[in-house]
Amino acid sequence: MQRALSVHRTAGNRSTFPEWYQAVVREAEMAEPSPVRGSMVIKPWGYGVWEQIQKELDRRIKETGHENCYFPLFIPLSFIAKEAQHVEGFAKEMAVVTHHRLKMIDGKLQPDPEAELEEPLIVRPTSETIIGDAFSRWIKSHRDLPLLINQWANVVRWEMRTRLFLRTAEFLWQEGHTAHADAEDAMEETYRDFAETTLAMPVIAGEKSENERFPGAENTYSIEAMMQDGKALQAGTSHYLGTHFAEAQNIRFQNEAGEHVLCHTTSWGVSTRLIGGVVMTHGDDDGLRLPPAIAPRQIVIVPMLRNKPEDADVLGYCQALGSALGNQTAFNERIRVLVDTRDTKSADKRWNWVRRGAPIIIEIGPRDVAGGQVTFMRRDHLRDGDKVRSGSMARDAFVAQAPQLLTEIQVRLYEEARTRLHSNIRTDIKSMSELKEHFGAAGDDEEGGEFKGWVRVPWAKPKGAQLEEIEKQLKQVKLSIRNAPLDQPRAPLGPCIFTGDRAVQEILIARAY
Amino acid sequence: MQRALSVHRTAGNRSTFPEWYQAVVREAEMAEPSPVRGSMVIKPWGYGVWEQIQKELDRRIKETGHENCYFPLFIPLSFIAKEAQHVEGFAKEMAVVTHHRLKMIDGKLQPDPEAELEEPLIVRPTSETIIGDAFSRWIKSHRDLPLLINQWANVVRWEMRTRLFLRTAEFLWQEGHTAHADAEDAMEETYRDFAETTLAMPVIAGEKSENERFPGAENTYSIEAMMQDGKALQAGTSHYLGTHFAEAQNIRFQNEAGEHVLCHTTSWGVSTRLIGGVVMTHGDDDGLRLPPAIAPRQIVIVPMLRNKPEDADVLGYCQALGSALGNQTAFNERIRVLVDTRDTKSADKRWNWVRRGAPIIIEIGPRDVAGGQVTFMRRDHLRDGDKVRSGSMARDAFVAQAPQLLTEIQVRLYEEARTRLHSNIRTDIKSMSELKEHFGAAGDDEEGGEFKGWVRVPWAKPKGAQLEEIEKQLKQVKLSIRNAPLDQPRAPLGPCIFTGDRAVQEILIARAY
Repeated sequence: MQRALSVHRTAGNRSTFPEWYQAVVREAEMAEPSPVRGSMVIKPWGYGVWEQIQKELDRRIKETGHENCYFPLFIPLSFIAKEAQHVEGFAKEMAVVTHHRLKMIDGKLQPDPEAELEEPLIVRPTSETIIGDAFSRWIKSHRDLPLLINQWANVVRWEMRTRLFLRTAEFLWQEGHTAHADAEDAMEETYRDFAETTLAMPVIAGEKSENERFPGAENTYSIEAMMQDGKALQAGTSHYLGTHFAEAQNIRFQNEAGEHVLCHTTSWGVSTRLIGGVVMTHGDDDGLRLPPAIAPRQIVIVPMLRNKPEDADVLGYCQALGSALGNQTAFNERIRVLVDTRDTKSADKRWNWVRRGAPIIIEIGPRDVAGGQVTFMRRDHLRDGDKVRSGSMARDAFVAQAPQLLTEIQVRLYEEARTRLHSNIRTDIKSMSELKEHFGAAGDDEEGGEFKGWVRVPWAKPKGAQLEEIEKQLKQVKLSIRNAPLDQPRAPLGPCIFTGDRAVQEILIARAY
Repeated sequence: MQRALSVHRTAGNRSTFPEWYQAVVREAEMAEPSPVRGSMVIKPWGYGVWEQIQKELDRRIKETGHENCYFPLFIPLSFIAKEAQHVEGFAKEMAVVTHHRLKMIDGKLQPDPEAELEEPLIVRPTSETIIGDAFSRWIKSHRDLPLLINQWANVVRWEMRTRLFLRTAEFLWQEGHTAHADAEDAMEETYRDFAETTLAMPVIAGEKSENERFPGAENTYSIEAMMQDGKALQAGTSHYLGTHFAEAQNIRFQNEAGEHVLCHTTSWGVSTRLIGGVVMTHGDDDGLRLPPAIAPRQIVIVPMLRNKPEDADVLGYCQALGSALGNQTAFNERIRVLVDTRDTKSADKRWNWVRRGAPIIIEIGPRDVAGGQVTFMRRDHLRDGDKVRSGSMARDAFVAQAPQLLTEIQVRLYEEARTRLHSNIRTDIKSMSELKEHFGAAGDDEEGGEFKGWVRVPWAKPKGAQLEEIEKQLKQVKLSIRNAPLDQPRAPLGPCIFTGDRAVQEILIARAY
């Protein structure tokens, strides 16, 4: 069986999944490792996906009243020290700038000892402290509230084990920061809708357990997506910080009674990690499949040229078809079309676009020109059995139906992923031992084993030492509590499977990225 | 005379210009200093301008075949060391990351001595080295050329004297990097057209002198704009690097004859400095005036509310007017309209939008509602003498004419700046002493003195020691050669004013930012 990709998943066995993921990212030309430890180079096709994600998410962020700003990359050590005092479980793996000049000493370029900074600077791992400092200056009266800010930026967290898009030392993200007079919801509903509508990636939004909260937060919410190996990917988080950060940073407003009271703040972010989620949700053994809403090119036209006189007709036909399609609208924008005129073989182009996951790939030869038709492949449904599937349609009918076709592909990818998610959450697990039996030992290779999906169980919300003991046991078999879904059943719950106490909610348990 | 701004320029005397600039940036709420030395916070209105600049420039960059990528923030010291060997005049003021962890030692959070990096990392001051490294891997055959890449990113250059937008340690920019089989023009024509069409900022594009080239470049081109104090602002640069960088980084391709030969490369960038240029080109004693093409809000509607029953009618009228205007198109996009419903006095709103430079400010009171009309101010022409000037028009006529009105404002701002530029370039200076006499001593305060404009003189293109001596003398009176304009006269030139030799071109001389 001919496949576009050099590494395949093996049906029913997820042990090749990590290699398959790397192969898709590499062969779809999304990103590659860089010479800088833990940092990646995002290549044009991968960055193009990020641009589509940015555009749509930015539209939603602005529509809900937030304004974009830009804050410094560097954070003074004293700001971090102040936060560390207020926050338990504060991570300390950060890039530290200590010098501002290089000098040639003994023939070797090195940090100039005379240019050591009085106060080291931290490369932002997130911007709560530096933005909170601005908020404390900007907010005076209740009239200044709510203050709704967002930033698109790069951040750095020193990670020991990195993987393209999923976990890198530097990554790109948006971080929203807001201040309010009262408690306020953060962004989890917007994220859920964005992930499902735009990324065609079904997620479950819910609250994290108290040990998994953002340090200092009152509540942390996440959206969790199920990857094709059954593991969970935390695809976005949203924090209600209460008045905790406002207190540390003295963010106060004068209320209508004239009192100076603390603001309530929130923060929330999604990152280039979403791209890894898209790959692991929609990819197949031929490479990536991109939801049309985020495909940098939604339709690619490959002219079948043969160095013959009729080539000019074929090219002209392709260009005219491209223009006609580009005047059509899908997902509220002009359709993004490319006529691939690169100087390489048509067959290589086809498989290149298959690997990259272009939603519709058109191949035009002299016969199509003569017949006034369009021969095309749908990337969401590339094969019947092993055979590549292609359709033909009269040119005008194809142009007219292209928007509908793209919408269909978007919906089909979503439905496929939704079915996978909802048919793979077991709800009949009754105890820790059943849980361990279901998931089995993860073994040395934490990625190994069969597809297990997730488990949803009643939960009494234990706290303190009891919670820690449960999480420790779960961790031993590489499991974790993902979240307590916002959608909870109305029917009475069984007893908590860990404590036997009366459950107050259900939680999701899974292996995770 | 009532002015919106707290600090004014004094007619004919530029000594207050720097304070005026700071006042405009502050009172238009564009940016503010941050607690991080040399770094600024870009506030929503300033960032909104940057977003408009990005959108239009990105469109042009993509239209000319470039694709966006993202490369690491950090550059290994060894890459910088290699470049330093190849390049004279290599700047060494850079932020150096030396540690990857903080640790609490003796109650004080500090860089963990056990987490020192084996090789320090540099925060990118520009990305030639890290992108060149990728190019050397990506380019194999002539079929891979041209390779046309662009990146939107933050960069850091340690600066001692910083000024908001004009010179900051961290700034935002785009950097284009391209590789070709042969010598190739870089971006100067695109930049010129962008500055003039979109920023309404007339510039002169030309070649920098050999001492002012980007280190290692064969040619550097700049666009130079005249600020309202007569000084020049280098608003963008574009470098043809020859095969010099390709050699240092081994960027080669196999040509059709099968030989492995060096690529020719270019790089080019513009930054948030452009925003400073817009302020100093278009601002007046009332604050900023924004060209409509880059105004985050092109039309602002202020409802004149008086806590009376008719307020609802006024608000309804404003919202309907806002929708009607928002359905109109200017500069190929929907008009960006805001109805300002903030809970503050109407007069405060008016002056806030005047200071921010919104191109059209509409004020709607009950009389306008009753008469079905629109009362508005044009920010490009706010006053007749001292009196604020406002016009009235029937509502439907105003809506219909709004696109035309915005275009008129754009053109008028451009023409005003163009007249200033072209009437302030003296061409009758014949010697260094006349030059010094014209400009006068700059004194201790380099910003001081009268408006002097620029001087354009014949130039024999001296090199080496002779060039250095001339530049040294110019520097003593705070002058510099800006560029040799691409548009050169056809008529024969007089002798070089510095060497007396036969001139080969004309150059521009000015004080500069």
